[in-house]
Amino acid sequence: MTPLTVCLLICASTVLGGGDKDRSAIAKVLDDQAIAWNKGDLIGFMAGYEKSEDLSFFSGNNKTKGWEATLDRYKKKYQGEGKEMGKLAFTELSIELLGPDHALVRGRYRLEFRNETPTGIFSLIMRRTAAGWKVIHDHTSS
Amino acid sequence: MTPLTVCLLICASTVLGGGDKDRSAIAKVLDDQAIAWNKGDLIGFMAGYEKSEDLSFFSGNNKTKGWEATLDRYKKKYQGEGKEMGKLAFTELSIELLGPDHALVRGRYRLEFRNETPTGIFSLIMRRTAAGWKVIHDHTSS
Repeated sequence: MTPLTVCLLICASTVLGGGDKDRSAIAKVLDDQAIAWNKGDLIGFMAGYEKSEDLSFFSGNNKTKGWEATLDRYKKKYQGEGKEMGKLAFTELSIELLGPDHALVRGRYRLEFRNETPTGIFSLIMRRTAAGWKVIHDHTSS
Repeated sequence: MTPLTVCLLICASTVLGGGDKDRSAIAKVLDDQAIAWNKGDLIGFMAGYEKSEDLSFFSGNNKTKGWEATLDRYKKKYQGEGKEMGKLAFTELSIELLGPDHALVRGRYRLEFRNETPTGIFSLIMRRTAAGWKVIHDHTSS
């Protein structure tokens, strides 16, 4: 094989061959998030997000920028006085790789509270980082 | 230069060098969409979306699948009886390339109707296609 062939094969295997492994790794990030949430562990839940000032979180008509601000938003919304975290489940998941290092994850969340079960849909952009696949942008609405 | 070097340079220029040109091309797709909308030309507006059954459109708590269904949704929402298309503007745009062939576009839309000016935020996933950059997933909320 010529070096060019080797290079093209590496490119192709990165884009195509790693797909199933990447999708499994991404699914595990979301599984781990739900497990952490259901233990009331917001920091564990937030491990799925890139710990960066560039993280962006869109919800309804509001934009939040940065990992810390996103954590604060979750704290206020789900751990404030009279709030509950409930039981979280992700359903209707679709994981689509966008080139070698990014993915689009579409899905639905469902929260089981004592008296209601709110649900909504989300689009996540995930990036392959040294620490594994991380959400770099989350758009959620209901 | 060895073939490997050439291959790596091509890879690098695709990922890095084309950035400004790609961002301009993507911005033009959105500009063209707004221009078409403001002429009442929904088909022209829809030219920014990939004409595919795989196109997905998330709005609030609703998912729409496919280009035709997305067009129908727009028709019902903005061209039905007593409806108006208004004047559309995109603001707060951020265009982030995700590898060589995809981009994440974040922004805000504003519609000027006779009696109100609704606004909301959106996340678009765009893909480089033979026909130029096209939206393959739109998540909008307000």
